[in-house]
Amino acid sequence: MSTTASQDSGAAAAAVAASGSQQRQKRTRVRAILEAPDETIVGSEVVVKGWVRTKRGQKTFTFLEVNDGSSLKGLQVVAGAELPSYGEVDRVSTGASVAVRGVIQESPGQGQRFELKASEISVLGECPGDYPLQKKRHSLEFLRGMAHLRPRTNTIGAVARVRSALAFATHQFFQGEGFQYLQTPLITASDCEGAGEMFRVTTLPPASPPTDDAGAVDFAKDFFGRPAYLTVSGQLSAETHACALGDVYTFGPTFRAENSQTTRHLAEFNMIEPEMAFADLIDDMDNAEAFVKHVVSHVLQNCRSDLDFFAGFYDKGLFDKLQRLVDQPFARIEYTAAVKLLQEEIAMDPSQWQFPDVSFGTDLQTEHERWLAEKKFNTATFVYNYPRTIKAFYMRDNEDGATVAAMDLLVPGVGELIGGSQREERLGVLEAKLREFGLDPKDYWWYLDLRKYGSVPHAGYGLGFERLVCYVTGIDNIREAIAFPRYPGSAEF
Amino acid sequence: MSTTASQDSGAAAAAVAASGSQQRQKRTRVRAILEAPDETIVGSEVVVKGWVRTKRGQKTFTFLEVNDGSSLKGLQVVAGAELPSYGEVDRVSTGASVAVRGVIQESPGQGQRFELKASEISVLGECPGDYPLQKKRHSLEFLRGMAHLRPRTNTIGAVARVRSALAFATHQFFQGEGFQYLQTPLITASDCEGAGEMFRVTTLPPASPPTDDAGAVDFAKDFFGRPAYLTVSGQLSAETHACALGDVYTFGPTFRAENSQTTRHLAEFNMIEPEMAFADLIDDMDNAEAFVKHVVSHVLQNCRSDLDFFAGFYDKGLFDKLQRLVDQPFARIEYTAAVKLLQEEIAMDPSQWQFPDVSFGTDLQTEHERWLAEKKFNTATFVYNYPRTIKAFYMRDNEDGATVAAMDLLVPGVGELIGGSQREERLGVLEAKLREFGLDPKDYWWYLDLRKYGSVPHAGYGLGFERLVCYVTGIDNIREAIAFPRYPGSAEF
Repeated sequence: MSTTASQDSGAAAAAVAASGSQQRQKRTRVRAILEAPDETIVGSEVVVKGWVRTKRGQKTFTFLEVNDGSSLKGLQVVAGAELPSYGEVDRVSTGASVAVRGVIQESPGQGQRFELKASEISVLGECPGDYPLQKKRHSLEFLRGMAHLRPRTNTIGAVARVRSALAFATHQFFQGEGFQYLQTPLITASDCEGAGEMFRVTTLPPASPPTDDAGAVDFAKDFFGRPAYLTVSGQLSAETHACALGDVYTFGPTFRAENSQTTRHLAEFNMIEPEMAFADLIDDMDNAEAFVKHVVSHVLQNCRSDLDFFAGFYDKGLFDKLQRLVDQPFARIEYTAAVKLLQEEIAMDPSQWQFPDVSFGTDLQTEHERWLAEKKFNTATFVYNYPRTIKAFYMRDNEDGATVAAMDLLVPGVGELIGGSQREERLGVLEAKLREFGLDPKDYWWYLDLRKYGSVPHAGYGLGFERLVCYVTGIDNIREAIAFPRYPGSAEF
Repeated sequence: MSTTASQDSGAAAAAVAASGSQQRQKRTRVRAILEAPDETIVGSEVVVKGWVRTKRGQKTFTFLEVNDGSSLKGLQVVAGAELPSYGEVDRVSTGASVAVRGVIQESPGQGQRFELKASEISVLGECPGDYPLQKKRHSLEFLRGMAHLRPRTNTIGAVARVRSALAFATHQFFQGEGFQYLQTPLITASDCEGAGEMFRVTTLPPASPPTDDAGAVDFAKDFFGRPAYLTVSGQLSAETHACALGDVYTFGPTFRAENSQTTRHLAEFNMIEPEMAFADLIDDMDNAEAFVKHVVSHVLQNCRSDLDFFAGFYDKGLFDKLQRLVDQPFARIEYTAAVKLLQEEIAMDPSQWQFPDVSFGTDLQTEHERWLAEKKFNTATFVYNYPRTIKAFYMRDNEDGATVAAMDLLVPGVGELIGGSQREERLGVLEAKLREFGLDPKDYWWYLDLRKYGSVPHAGYGLGFERLVCYVTGIDNIREAIAFPRYPGSAEF
């Protein structure tokens, strides 16, 4: 019943437990060694634990590259044949886990400052020959089929570390600016934003749900006493708290049941949605610009070796692109002016464009957005004051009667990263607009209450976190930007 | 179509926009004024924006207490009748939003160091007389029916701020310890843990789902091509990343479709789930203890006025309780020893106990847990090494053959705050245990792969975030610990 691998790892674990001291001595992370601030680490005794990436045997010693996931690079371990535990080396292959005690020394080899001269080595878990992640490179598509193992690869491991750094920098930024973190509900009975197809959440039996007298499904018997869905945005909930606490931000999952198999969409993704009381569209853009600069700057400072890797294999201009984003002010252009620029450009050679007809009221296409951000301004670009007819009901009407105080942030390579707006805070205007959009003000009673009782100008935006991860790493497909991607037909792991 | 309130707020907003300078001068948060480090703030000109809590008129001036949600306490504004904009004061009532420009001065009144002498005041949004949050106190049950307005109250506003601080301290702690933040998927096709009833997620039409030849619901036509559910735990997913990155933590929503109307359970709640590679049960308890101490310590330092409020109205011994938690080592007792202590205590007067029969194999009841944490040890208490028969399949078998390396953390007042374990990392043992628990190893192929390829000892735990909020604030009902509580029959807002 038990396999060789399990017996081995069990025996090794027992041996470690019995030895006691090694078990309780805290392991040192590889990153801490590789990034040691100075040479005083040389001579230190440490215990390193990780997975073997490569093994190169010589006559009297063996090199192991041990990676513990704390950094892209592994630590070179030198195990000499004179070690009492040298026999363990025979059980080591790519993917095996090991514990190594030893002393840090300067490395005579190239590519690393320090290496670990082993005094004791033990295999924690062997790795049989059918391990799918042997040294050769695998396609990202292939790796997606083994989402449980792919974080052990350079690419997906680096994405995970950069993603974690971006997440922490997000909290740092908003907390530092005095925002309160808010977790908005994922299960909701209201499809308030009307932003797309939703997943239904239910505990009714699928085959024979209870029915009412008219023969319709009786949702009064469902868990929440009514139909319930997974949220498409926390914005409306966030507004309730901005209108009480001042400035809030959310950061959590959001869902779209759209049947699309693209490299830019997921059924489950993560959004950051700040909402600011006493703020207008300019405050909104100012905050978004400061936020994006902060998180990119944080990653430039804290994820150097991961970014080196992405610059080497995915996006040669990565550092230029990120540094320019941090250093330069973002471009800001009104929609109407952007349309004029596009018209002039398109007129020069309409055959170059898939959508050459651009006029006021046109929903800008990706090719238009990319031309603005990549060709015209070559930097992150806000387009703002959009036609009211192509934007959501809750956006604030401008005085011109034709536009709303909305903005999108376009970034080179990715396109739309952020969408935001000043919210309509005038009760009568909002009620009229709900009717104009075919919505029933009764369904929005609590949202309207915010405008009835001490209404304030307020604004906010939403940033798709996985798109940010794509932008910062240069990874093309959003399915690599999240640990376990969810899309039509895919919910395994 | 537009109401008086909306016309007023619209006019005020237009006035502010036209004035320009006030619009672009950054507002100063009330908290920054109240907690100014020294008296040099006196004489500063600031713009404060917030909601009026109280208004007290005198002959020649008016006092307004303005709260902007940045702190429990508001700022006293003094508006003299000589102000050109003094007429605005007539439009102010409890709940109205205002912008006030003025100069900070020392306050001659009691209870505050500083007040704001207004030079200009404008009403942003009036508040009509039917505002449900007039000054008198409301029951928490009553407030639950207006979850969109309740963060404007002292209690719920303070909970929101403390909660935000606890969330940030959580990220600080784990990032500081070198953990990577991981967002595990909420939609899952596997009910791996078997931890309880799940919500089903679907896009099939509820009344007439497609059926297969046998007449059963054809889930191949559902969004994910199979039945899908909302996760009950991110643990198994987190293990995949701990076995690649070393140490990871999750912090996000979790779901239970249990039809319970208690003060301790929610259908949608938030869990923090760290998972550590190369760690055993002692590392697990050490980390949990350091984590809880860190977040409580952070709140003691950063949320003083909110905690003062909770100590005054909800839990007189709050500061003692929290300070003791930070200062004292947590108690640690093996389950077997805990049972013996309970047996001795119960023997003295069995009539005092609802569940007097306690022996090895008993699932401890709340009264047992509370006696241990509140009476016997009077501090946070780990109980560990539980009988294997009452714990989950993935917990590591101890050498005694009778117990597993599991731990629960019990805290006074709340009971179980954390549950964790060392995970079974031996492939053969885990396979056998799956079968013993009536589970099919085939369904866990990817979980077993972690044990097959470079298996490592690892451990983790889960902390219910809303229970932590209850513990730290002294709030009894978990429905007050979250912005929009979800429970049977409740998914509004």
